[in-house]
Amino acid sequence: MNKMPTKLLDDAVDAFMRLPGIGRRTAMRMVLHLLRQPEDVSERFGKAIERMRKETHYCLRCHNICDGEICSICSDKRRDDKLICVVEDIRDLIAIEHTLQFRGVYHVLGGVVSPMDGIGPSDLNVDTLIAKLKTENISELIMALSATMEGDTTSFYIYRKIQQYGLSVKFSVIARGVSIGDDLEYADEITLGRSILNRVPYETTFAVNAKS
Amino acid sequence: MNKMPTKLLDDAVDAFMRLPGIGRRTAMRMVLHLLRQPEDVSERFGKAIERMRKETHYCLRCHNICDGEICSICSDKRRDDKLICVVEDIRDLIAIEHTLQFRGVYHVLGGVVSPMDGIGPSDLNVDTLIAKLKTENISELIMALSATMEGDTTSFYIYRKIQQYGLSVKFSVIARGVSIGDDLEYADEITLGRSILNRVPYETTFAVNAKS
Repeated sequence: MNKMPTKLLDDAVDAFMRLPGIGRRTAMRMVLHLLRQPEDVSERFGKAIERMRKETHYCLRCHNICDGEICSICSDKRRDDKLICVVEDIRDLIAIEHTLQFRGVYHVLGGVVSPMDGIGPSDLNVDTLIAKLKTENISELIMALSATMEGDTTSFYIYRKIQQYGLSVKFSVIARGVSIGDDLEYADEITLGRSILNRVPYETTFAVNAKS
Repeated sequence: MNKMPTKLLDDAVDAFMRLPGIGRRTAMRMVLHLLRQPEDVSERFGKAIERMRKETHYCLRCHNICDGEICSICSDKRRDDKLICVVEDIRDLIAIEHTLQFRGVYHVLGGVVSPMDGIGPSDLNVDTLIAKLKTENISELIMALSATMEGDTTSFYIYRKIQQYGLSVKFSVIARGVSIGDDLEYADEITLGRSILNRVPYETTFAVNAKS
């Protein structure tokens, strides 16, 4: 299955195939697309990837991506640095930023505890989080992890760590429930069950809607 | 929807989004994947794309991809250069090469006639094909285009050109029919109908099977 017209094409297809979810056919389609474009498209593409990896650093405070030492969120004086939202990765951080509903800072774990994938707490940025809680006067930690076994395990691990060190910080988890705009009859039972258990006063939802 | 932590990340995501079938989420997934890998992975990736585009040329004879002037297929003396298989693009050429059933040479059109997409015969490598037929003693032209309206139109256009110039060349089209291994009841009516009209003597299929 490896009869490419030239070695160069082969190398480019191989490079694409190393990306997640890209097979040989898709890789080939992308390479042929680039071949049809003017030369500078490929050049800019290649350079953008190289520079991105070489010049991107991680924020020393929250492990977000940045081009200096401290990211734009951590260095923003208007944000509440006593309120920390814990996320799995930068994609989740970006998603929360898009909501425009959070004015605290973040802590990027870089993953969730997943024994199946061989990821333990030591592979995550948990130590720096605990260090921050010990040395600074953090008021609240909001766990914004996926509603999966792995996400829940990670939240529980951090919760236990906090108890273990006797740290006094408010520990909360983002609300789980029926998505806005969803038909109740199509919601899965677990989500629906949780949304009844975690019901909130009607005035609260009204306040949230009014704000947005 | 464009709140990226850094400009560099944004540039890399944009570069990926220019590829066919890649949206913002997928682009982001790829960029974050590259960020997690060692630096040389991104460097090799970027370099492979740049070199591929810069150093890839098209064969002067058949428009296949090559690193010199004439591609490895056209310059292969063991192949029959009187037998030309006409294909839409390099992907189809590679697919036919994989079958190991064709020992002639190719002619890559670079597309098919598609008025909907604004692609006319003048946008394709038809002139060089006609020139080849006029000046060389080509024995047979095998049209291996997709069984679509566009593919059929293109075949017909070339067929008319050949008649117009009074060229004596055998003009054939690859067989259409029920895929090998397919259940008859699931084949579509047009394919099944064609496969009955274009039935072949039983001995022929036997010979093909024995060869492979």
